[in-house]
Formats: sequence, C-alpha cells, structure tokens
Amino acid sequence: MPDSTTITADEFCRFAISVFQCAGLPAEQAQQAVAPLVWASLRGVDTHGIRNFKPYYVDGLIAGRIASTAACEIEYETPLSARANGADGLGLSAAGWGMRLAIDKAETSGIGLISMRNSNHLGAAGYFSQLAVEQDMIGLCLSGHLYGEGNATGMPPVFGLQPMFGTNPLSVAIPCGDEPTYVLDMSTSVVPVNRVEMMQEQGQSIPLGWCLDAAGRPTSDPGQAAIFLPLGGTRELGAHKGFGLAMLVEVLTALLSNGWAPATDSTPADAPGVYHQERIAHFFGAIRIDLFRAAGEFRQAMDAMIGSLHRAQPAPGHERIFVPGEIEHDTQRIRSRQGIPLSHKEVQDLRWLSKRYDLPLTFSHS
Amino acid sequence: MPDSTTITADEFCRFAISVFQCAGLPAEQAQQAVAPLVWASLRGVDTHGIRNFKPYYVDGLIAGRIASTAACEIEYETPLSARANGADGLGLSAAGWGMRLAIDKAETSGIGLISMRNSNHLGAAGYFSQLAVEQDMIGLCLSGHLYGEGNATGMPPVFGLQPMFGTNPLSVAIPCGDEPTYVLDMSTSVVPVNRVEMMQEQGQSIPLGWCLDAAGRPTSDPGQAAIFLPLGGTRELGAHKGFGLAMLVEVLTALLSNGWAPATDSTPADAPGVYHQERIAHFFGAIRIDLFRAAGEFRQAMDAMIGSLHRAQPAPGHERIFVPGEIEHDTQRIRSRQGIPLSHKEVQDLRWLSKRYDLPLTFSHS
Repeated sequence: MPDSTTITADEFCRFAISVFQCAGLPAEQAQQAVAPLVWASLRGVDTHGIRNFKPYYVDGLIAGRIASTAACEIEYETPLSARANGADGLGLSAAGWGMRLAIDKAETSGIGLISMRNSNHLGAAGYFSQLAVEQDMIGLCLSGHLYGEGNATGMPPVFGLQPMFGTNPLSVAIPCGDEPTYVLDMSTSVVPVNRVEMMQEQGQSIPLGWCLDAAGRPTSDPGQAAIFLPLGGTRELGAHKGFGLAMLVEVLTALLSNGWAPATDSTPADAPGVYHQERIAHFFGAIRIDLFRAAGEFRQAMDAMIGSLHRAQPAPGHERIFVPGEIEHDTQRIRSRQGIPLSHKEVQDLRWLSKRYDLPLTFSHS
Repeated sequence: MPDSTTITADEFCRFAISVFQCAGLPAEQAQQAVAPLVWASLRGVDTHGIRNFKPYYVDGLIAGRIASTAACEIEYETPLSARANGADGLGLSAAGWGMRLAIDKAETSGIGLISMRNSNHLGAAGYFSQLAVEQDMIGLCLSGHLYGEGNATGMPPVFGLQPMFGTNPLSVAIPCGDEPTYVLDMSTSVVPVNRVEMMQEQGQSIPLGWCLDAAGRPTSDPGQAAIFLPLGGTRELGAHKGFGLAMLVEVLTALLSNGWAPATDSTPADAPGVYHQERIAHFFGAIRIDLFRAAGEFRQAMDAMIGSLHRAQPAPGHERIFVPGEIEHDTQRIRSRQGIPLSHKEVQDLRWLSKRYDLPLTFSHS
C-alpha cells in the first residue's frame, strides 16, 4: 500500500546519513546534508525534501556531477563578509557551512554576509535562513543560476521567451516570540521547477499562469513546461518585479562571489570575454537584531504584528489568515508525531537505495 | 493647450524649492525634497514625481499633517546601524538624511543599515537607493506601513480581504559599468496606490487583477479600488510571496525602528498592549561592493550579465529585453532635453501654487 506509507524523521535521517556515506560523503557532511531534507519534509515542503534525495543528490554524487569530498574554502574575507568557494560539492552541506560562517561573523561583528560560488542545489533555502533565528538574528539565504547562453528550462526575462535564470529562490527568517518563526521561502518565479516535476509525477495538470511550453504557449501539462514565468506572470501584473528579484538574487550569489565570470582568466580587462556560470551560487546573511534594539522587545513586536494580521477579516471560503512559515509549523507538529507520508516514487527510490547499499530501511504504514 | 505643456527640470526645481520654503521648509530641506520628485518625473515614473508635489507634500505641510521644521534624530546607533526618528517631517527630505547616514556608515564600516520611524511618504524609493551606487555600494530603500486595525485602502494578507499594509515598496540599486544603473523599485502589491489614482485622473480603467472593491469583488474601475492585491494576485499565482515581502518590508522599517509600538509606554512587558503605527517607517541600506571584490571587476560582471540578458530571445511583439532601470534611463535622456510633460491636473496644481505664493512659473509648450 504505497499510498499510505510513511517514514519517521529519525528513521529517514539514520538511513539517509548512511546512504550519503556510502556515496562517498564524510560522516559530518552526511549529517549536515540530511538536516535540510528532513526539515522540509516534516514541514510539508515536499517539493524540497525526501523527494529530491535520490535524484538530485545521491544520483549526482554517484555520477560524479557533485564532488563527494569537496571542502568549502574562503577566497576573501573581512570581519563582515566572505567570498567562498563551494568546490563543486553538495549544496546541502555547503550551505550549512556558509550559513554558520555568516552567523559566526554576525556574532563577532554584528552582520555576516557570505557569497559562495561553485556549489549545487541546496534544498529548502528556508532551512538555512532559520538557523540564524535562535541567535536573535535575521537570516537570509538565496540561490542563483544564470545560464549565459540560455537553457532548455528556467525563467526568462520579462518581454523574453528564452530561459536565462534558474527559479532563483530567496528566503528570509525572522525571530518571533510565542508565534512560529517567520520563514519566507520563495522562488522568484511563480513556482519552482520541482513543484512542476512533482505534479507531473502525481499525474496532475498545472494551473495556467505558471509556465509556458518551449514554443512560448501557455500550458497546463507539466511535461511540456519549459518557461517558468517570473513572479507576477505577465508584465501587466508585475512580472518585471519577479524578474528584477531574480536578477538581485543572481547579483548577491554569483556576481559578488565571482561565480559569473569570464570563460578564461586571460581575458584583458578592457575587453571582457564571454562570461558564464558553471554551477549554482549562494548567498547567506545574518543580521543581529540588537544592532537596532533589544531582541526580546523585537520578538514581542513580531507577535503583535502577527496577532494584528490574524485579526484581519478573512476572504470568503477562508477561515483564517496565515503568515509565512505558519502552515509549515503546524504541519511539522503533525508529521513529527505521525511520520512523513511518502509518494509511490519516494518509496521506490528509498527501496532502491536500500538494496543498492544493503542498508536496512523501515517504513511505517498509516 | 494643457495636453502638450511641459516644464524643464531646472524650472520645476527652482519653483518647487521656493514653494516648499513658502510652506515652511528650511532651504536645505526644500532642496533635498525636490530632488527625488524631479528624478522620478525625468525618468518617466510619473506616479511618483511632480504629480504628488501639491497633494501629498505641500498640502500636507499646509494642513500641518507633515511637520515643516522637523529634524531627524538618531535614537540608537552602532558603527553599522542606527535607529532614527523622522520627527513627523517630510519623508522626501528625511529619506535623503537617512540614506546619507547609511552611506556614511558604510564608508567607514563597510555596511550601513538605518531603520527610521515617524516619517511620511518618501516619493520614489529608487531615488534613495541609487544614491549609494556612485560610492561603489549596493543601495536599499524600503518604506512600510501597517494599519494595526485595518484601513479603507491598502494591501490585505493572503486569504484576507481587510487592507492591513500600505503597498510597502522596496528598492535596490546596483552599480554597473557602461550599462545604466540597475534600479529595482517595486511596490510589494501588484501596483502602488498612486498608479491607480493616476489612471483615475486620466479617465482610464484598470486591468482586472490589480485591485478589488471594498466588498472584495474584482474591479476595473479605479474609483472603486480599495483592496490592493499582493504581488502574485492570487494564492495559486503567488500572492503569499507578495504578502510575505510586504511583511519583510514592515519588519525592516517599522519593527526594527520601534515605529510599530505599544499604544502606551506603561504596558507591562509580559502583557503586550495594543500596538499601532502612526506614520510611515523607512529602511535604508548601503553595502560596499569591496567587502567581496573590487568594484571595477564587479561592474564589468554586471555589464556582462545585462549583455547576456539583452541577447535572450524576445517574446513575439517585443523587440528587445529591458532590465530594471533601463527604460527609465532612456526616458531621462529624452526628458532632460525635451522637458517633462505635464498632465492637465499637474498644470492646474502648479498654477494654483504659483498664484497662492505669488511665485513666477514658466511652462514650455511642445
């Protein structure tokens, strides 16, 4: 009965850490890499959780597309900032390293901003930004990719049809008091690529307004989706804003880190050559609340703002208002008790890995 | 022939500085306050330029809604940050003060972040963020308002109908090389309030998807627009992102500055009272590029990114791709030569002010 199969967070972590180690990852990195996946799955962000474990990460390590023994390096730093190199490794663990560096710098200096090149898909950006919240900091995590000559899928510029960007996500986490942490975690396109992939796996159609096919026609067939519209959808409804935000993400991730760089080092300075960006780049930020005011007072003001929004009149058909991170927080409480529901494909993937590496794996059935 | 009336930037500045002084503003503040207005009008951002001069600012000063002799004050500061008080004054000049403070701090410390409460409408946020660019910095300017108990017009939360926020704009400016400065300047709603006001003045209808009427029905009548939808429009197309960004703007502007505060100071800490925000709050940021890399190299990489986007295939019906700030830059070149075209209402407003204060005013006619 694959439809009602679940796995506990603990069991997934134990299993996935072993799998990552079998795929060549050092123990500490394996542990770091599993944390954002189980966080996403517990919170109901199924597009960025267990679903991607095999196809995005383990398969990448096996095929050598992701370097398994990569160690992140600082290429330049100040007390407030660093430019780092992800060394072609797993984004899931590189992002943990980068975010901790941002938090460490903020602890010492008030603010820490890290721009990292040469990395790979990092999972749910919100996981990394929320790491700062416990330290009474605002956390930021962005991830960007510019395809210099275009790509088969991705986000086009406004007025354009050629996919030029990834769906360049940005996330911000802000400490609250009794209310759940504010976590905004959004692609700068209408939807991220993996949302459409997941709906295709589930045999669902996608709403018009998310994507165009390769010829630029609106499509509700996830299999035909190639052009991921910028947030706003059309120029009239604000697509220039989604596109502008995607460029901003690109600047902080790939341009500050030198991930978007001339193809050769020998290009003379006055004749910039062809630039390209081979891998995904990231940006991590941590800003101490007490640069402005006492964190306790600030957390109370956050609760009061959320309380005020909760009292706003809901639209017909809706019982209440939710703020960013709240639905996910509720789901996390349920799934921590009841386990993480798995799709047929997720069960298949995990079984395949269990067999390949001869590792025990226990599902639950609800 | 009011339809073909124009005014030169110099003539508007001369006239408007005198008007602001007649309305009680000190000379230096008057000069500062005119700069963002003429900048917006020269760049074709007519929603945020001369159009608002009389109704938003001069009328506000005359009626005493805006304090004419306000002096901004620092309430708390570190080498990287400050919490400031706009003293109920003109946002146009307070924002210039705040942005210069951010730039000064960044010059000394690498980064400058300023959160300011008790201010008023600041005009085009992009004007202030672009002030940082000449110093090889990334500039930020945000402006936020939360109506604690709701408001007749504004942005509702997603799943909600009650306007709770202003259209909370955010702007970012980034230095380029030969290409025009990247200036993203966007409300976090689909459109800002003054866009709809302007279309009403011009007798135009508004596209469906921008606003709802007070009863929550889609409307194309700008006179009925009350609910300004968050960027994304509907939940399915990403309105939770626009709403999430509006909250982020609010946090950086009003929560860090203590502009969103308990109604009385005597509220015990463990029982937060009713919070409210009387006036608009702002946030200004300046981040030195050389925290990461040499500014010259970075500017070249920006040009290369924009060049790459310009080479992307345009959509049918479009000749080329534009990046944020580019159309405005082109308009600025034209209007610097040909003057700023004025609407009938703008001509009327300026004539009224010329008569009231007995100040000479010269229009051109094209």
